Amino acid sequence: MTFREKLAISVKKNNSLLCIGLDASSDKIPLVRRTVSDPIFNFNKAIIDVTADLVCAYKPNTAFYEAEGTDGITQLQMTCNYLAEKYPEIPIIIDAKRGDIGNTSAAYARFVFDYLGGDAVTLAPYMGRESLTPFLEYGDKGLYILCRTSNDGSEEFQDLVIGEEKLYELVAKNVVENWNTNQNCHLVVGATKPEELAKVRTIVGDDMQLLVPGVGAQGGDVEATIKAGINTNGAGIIVNSSRGIIYASGGNDYTEAARQAAVKLRDEINNYR
Amino acid sequence: MTFREKLAISVKKNNSLLCIGLDASSDKIPLVRRTVSDPIFNFNKAIIDVTADLVCAYKPNTAFYEAEGTDGITQLQMTCNYLAEKYPEIPIIIDAKRGDIGNTSAAYARFVFDYLGGDAVTLAPYMGRESLTPFLEYGDKGLYILCRTSNDGSEEFQDLVIGEEKLYELVAKNVVENWNTNQNCHLVVGATKPEELAKVRTIVGDDMQLLVPGVGAQGGDVEATIKAGINTNGAGIIVNSSRGIIYASGGNDYTEAARQAAVKLRDEINNYR
Repeated sequence: MTFREKLAISVKKNNSLLCIGLDASSDKIPLVRRTVSDPIFNFNKAIIDVTADLVCAYKPNTAFYEAEGTDGITQLQMTCNYLAEKYPEIPIIIDAKRGDIGNTSAAYARFVFDYLGGDAVTLAPYMGRESLTPFLEYGDKGLYILCRTSNDGSEEFQDLVIGEEKLYELVAKNVVENWNTNQNCHLVVGATKPEELAKVRTIVGDDMQLLVPGVGAQGGDVEATIKAGINTNGAGIIVNSSRGIIYASGGNDYTEAARQAAVKLRDEINNYR
Repeated sequence: MTFREKLAISVKKNNSLLCIGLDASSDKIPLVRRTVSDPIFNFNKAIIDVTADLVCAYKPNTAFYEAEGTDGITQLQMTCNYLAEKYPEIPIIIDAKRGDIGNTSAAYARFVFDYLGGDAVTLAPYMGRESLTPFLEYGDKGLYILCRTSNDGSEEFQDLVIGEEKLYELVAKNVVENWNTNQNCHLVVGATKPEELAKVRTIVGDDMQLLVPGVGAQGGDVEATIKAGINTNGAGIIVNSSRGIIYASGGNDYTEAARQAAVKLRDEINNYR
């Protein structure tokens, strides 16, 4: 099954466009979990078990695992394995933002798809399509290319104007027109600028998925995000929240609080579909 | 000691602008090494021991280690620890090409600088200066921002024209003018386009280091590269070769062959300084 098909099934089954970012650090998870072995994996497992009926995808960001070295990578793999075994219908998006020359991109693809078993990955566009060829060749996987990111200062290069178009618009255009021969390309567009999300949707048409981070801790508005990013079928967008859900409470009630936050955001998203 | 100072010392001590890319994969190292435990680390160690008097820096690329999972990350850390203990005067550049929002960049910086003990790192510019703030704050480290990369197809976005300047020129300009308050920013500019290397040198002046991959396997010309990239003091550039040195022979003579290839390239570079 391709990533695209797997995502469509989980969106429908859980009636959800919510993706939860599994971005825990061992110094930020609730105290009650810090004493067990594999604390991040066990924290993730607890979060997953109370939200697996509420999400369309999970998205661990490699940075938080790498920061803890091999222990972290082990726990990232344990998390992916747990998802694949217990919730095989929910796709895993590895948020890695990788990009390197072809020879090296092939090695990153092995890490993300073969070692971790990810269904999709985030990638950086700066080096161009050819640099990402080894990823593009994984026709059954999903590739989310950074287009318009949610961070402060993302306009520094992304809003530069070439002719009559901004750089992020050209990224969207090139990806939809030239990169997507295997129908596995999608885009990352932040929730912090809904008008740009709407522009990207216009450029890419209905078929392409938009992964939208920036709701919650980063301040993106849910209603504006959904209205701007959704396609004419009421889908084509997934909204990521990390800290707003996994750290909804730092106390012993962290699973209940995470579930409540996930229910609230999933329902809020669905209100505007 | 800062990365900048450490690099200046190793350049002088070894009379070398050569950086060796430690990019081994367990399926590509010589057969004679594949049967030992920690094969990549032991291969790296052998390469390092025969080239440590010939280089100004080593540059492991994280991709090749991540492709082998936690075993690979362990061997990357072993390689960095070995360098730090046995050759503390030689800086380690972690080729990671990371870039993410601030909160996440901070985690990557912990991986690269705190866990691996890298002296410098390569970073992707697409998300803008603010996204890399946690890296910029490590004033004693070196940050090599991707500017004009050596790969085929790098022109797709990097050569787009904004006003009268190309995107890679604007990246160079922004980095030198706005990012470099801690004097720790440098640039990656590929050897495959010497005229662009010369333009970048003009934009950034004498102080900034240029890390130049693309000589050897990727086809960049040494004479043209050095003449285009060097500053008015005969320095300010380091030239990376990976496969052309570490895989100079796939047989039992791999260390002698690597040393010969490194001597040849170091001397060739020095001929044109």
